[in-house]
Amino acid sequence: MPEFFHVITADSLVQLLARFARLPSEFKPIDHALDRVLYESVLATEQLPEWPRSTVDGFAVRAEDTFGASDSIPALLDCADSVRMGTMPDFSIKAGQAAPIPTGGFLPQGADAVVMVEYTNTAGIDSIEVMRPVTAKTNVLDRGEDAKPGEVLLIPGKRLRSQEIGFLAALGIAEVIVYRQPRVAVISTGDEIVPLENKPRMGQVRDANGHSLCALVRNSGAEPVSFDIVPDNAAMLYEVLEKALEQTDVVTISGGSSVGARDLMVEVVSRLPGVEVLAHGVAIRPGKPTLLANQAGKAIFGLPGHPVSALVVAQAFLAPFLRYLQGDKLEKGPRGYRSKALLATSMHSTIGLEEFVRVRLERRAEMDWAHPVFGKSGMLSTMVKADGVVIIPMNVEGFSKGEVVEVIEI
Amino acid sequence: MPEFFHVITADSLVQLLARFARLPSEFKPIDHALDRVLYESVLATEQLPEWPRSTVDGFAVRAEDTFGASDSIPALLDCADSVRMGTMPDFSIKAGQAAPIPTGGFLPQGADAVVMVEYTNTAGIDSIEVMRPVTAKTNVLDRGEDAKPGEVLLIPGKRLRSQEIGFLAALGIAEVIVYRQPRVAVISTGDEIVPLENKPRMGQVRDANGHSLCALVRNSGAEPVSFDIVPDNAAMLYEVLEKALEQTDVVTISGGSSVGARDLMVEVVSRLPGVEVLAHGVAIRPGKPTLLANQAGKAIFGLPGHPVSALVVAQAFLAPFLRYLQGDKLEKGPRGYRSKALLATSMHSTIGLEEFVRVRLERRAEMDWAHPVFGKSGMLSTMVKADGVVIIPMNVEGFSKGEVVEVIEI
Repeated sequence: MPEFFHVITADSLVQLLARFARLPSEFKPIDHALDRVLYESVLATEQLPEWPRSTVDGFAVRAEDTFGASDSIPALLDCADSVRMGTMPDFSIKAGQAAPIPTGGFLPQGADAVVMVEYTNTAGIDSIEVMRPVTAKTNVLDRGEDAKPGEVLLIPGKRLRSQEIGFLAALGIAEVIVYRQPRVAVISTGDEIVPLENKPRMGQVRDANGHSLCALVRNSGAEPVSFDIVPDNAAMLYEVLEKALEQTDVVTISGGSSVGARDLMVEVVSRLPGVEVLAHGVAIRPGKPTLLANQAGKAIFGLPGHPVSALVVAQAFLAPFLRYLQGDKLEKGPRGYRSKALLATSMHSTIGLEEFVRVRLERRAEMDWAHPVFGKSGMLSTMVKADGVVIIPMNVEGFSKGEVVEVIEI
Repeated sequence: MPEFFHVITADSLVQLLARFARLPSEFKPIDHALDRVLYESVLATEQLPEWPRSTVDGFAVRAEDTFGASDSIPALLDCADSVRMGTMPDFSIKAGQAAPIPTGGFLPQGADAVVMVEYTNTAGIDSIEVMRPVTAKTNVLDRGEDAKPGEVLLIPGKRLRSQEIGFLAALGIAEVIVYRQPRVAVISTGDEIVPLENKPRMGQVRDANGHSLCALVRNSGAEPVSFDIVPDNAAMLYEVLEKALEQTDVVTISGGSSVGARDLMVEVVSRLPGVEVLAHGVAIRPGKPTLLANQAGKAIFGLPGHPVSALVVAQAFLAPFLRYLQGDKLEKGPRGYRSKALLATSMHSTIGLEEFVRVRLERRAEMDWAHPVFGKSGMLSTMVKADGVVIIPMNVEGFSKGEVVEVIEI
């Protein structure tokens, strides 16, 4: 089997990912729906507010009774009962009357505006002077002004923030229909890989990918399902892939640092029933030995064995894909703050490969500086030292020192 | 009691918050330490790698045997055993020998470099031709090159990302010491407030703050502890505050839309043993009726009753404070992407108040446009329509249409 029989570009990979169907929906109580994406519109079923409410501390009045009022010629109004919080006023405001009302209080019948307490004076025991005129609806949040029955409050694709949760609560909406979160199989493979708890014998290394990828999956709003480490054995790889496809929505299998192990992985994946290998190699660096397959609508990501390469590919393609499955738009490239920075050192790249260069940011008042983090391929310390990445497109030879580049903080 | 006897600026509020002590530390398995902040440095206890490893597929050689090799005069080397993944080679490379080695393989004794397979040819059954010279350490990740025992890998204050989790796993570090996450009491008060499940009678409104603030607390990496709604009753308020201070690290109590309810809240808070009321009113809009107190080192946030005001204050001050307690630097203002946008409509503000104006972003290729979201004070729909806020500093009268402003996306 040729080493990379089907190398595709990063753009093509994103297009292939966009063909997978999003996950189905589920009901969620709003207290567990933070950061989830709406599957269906949310419609109001009630008026908000149910009745006109005051937005200030003051006096509920008939607006017309204040017309022409000023400091020199105030309007003199008789005090009616006070509006209390939590109950509907059981009295109404007649011509020439004013009722003390707190912020949020429901307007008594007959009142159509509120005068702020600052623009009034007490005048005797049961009267006030109003020094400013108000028009109807002044300092009043009208019935249904915030939401009306049948009104579309939120549309599908909306990611719920604290403010949406509060709005839904105010309207009595206890549950919403959101996209389900993907369950993601995380499988590390390789004869040399041992669990974190084991002291590696000479020739062995600990499983870094199992832990970094679970963290990335969790950080993408998905649920990681961790599988035991699998040696480079076709039958065992096949078995774990079958099991993972049964139990999860997306399968990631990392490993195959060497040509032999890579060939083994693609051979095993190809044997799954009805599988379509969409990509066997992506024109990126690091991460060229990336495999993408589709088995009955489920995506299988074959990630490189190198922890740095595996994580770069996962950040650039898996994380946005997991967000896409949950209802977000599919975006290309890692998710994170994108900011402009000045390049501190020139970076060179190979035409035909999209390159992900790790950079450290030096914060400056005017504009940050991006310093490429150097180090041999496969050095884990380089990814820890980096604050973000700069992407060098495949048809660009590099960027020069002093150029403004886009940094994605991840 | 005067309405606001101790109004402070937003800057002073942040300075007061910075005087609270951060939370103590706890041990966490690395698989549960994503997004947590290190309390202590992490030091390596092992070499990474333990032994020189190849970074490519190729042949392990003595570098000197390849000196002068070229396409026309290749170096002829005898093949030794193959290096297999997962075991330490039990043979050594002698002068004139080469051992097939996969990426990640451990170098046999005697070898000090690796020639990429692309620069070799088979020559007979047990020999290869090397067409390029290599120097010592070429294509080799040396012993301890990624980490050495005693080396500081990560420093206190570092927030753990997927890459740090992977690095720690590779080094066999299963647990880290991180700042504890705050438990935050969320208490809604007010005679007019009923739980989400209840159909409000006329005069009542549903509890929006209880839900939006729990979501915000969770979104700030902290754990919300939700309390039952409390009416405007001094004894009941005192009792729930006592209980909340016992059970949690930070107490938020929202309510007091009206002057009377605000006075009640500050009176009750003032009676707590050893309490110090640090602020009773903050020069911001919305959110002026905000209270901050310190009881035995625990912060009490008295938030406005208005759901919009409560959430604006919580986003601007509570969320960064909760991150600060967990080890982050205390930053002023809401947490979120900060980007520049062109203002689509002029915004006016009052001198002496720092104003938080909700804006909707219109995405444009060149630069986004920020449209202020208009609506009466207290309208929940305005915060749902907004993509972020623009802060108008207290000594600024506003911004003009077309000006470049900073938008914080929240």
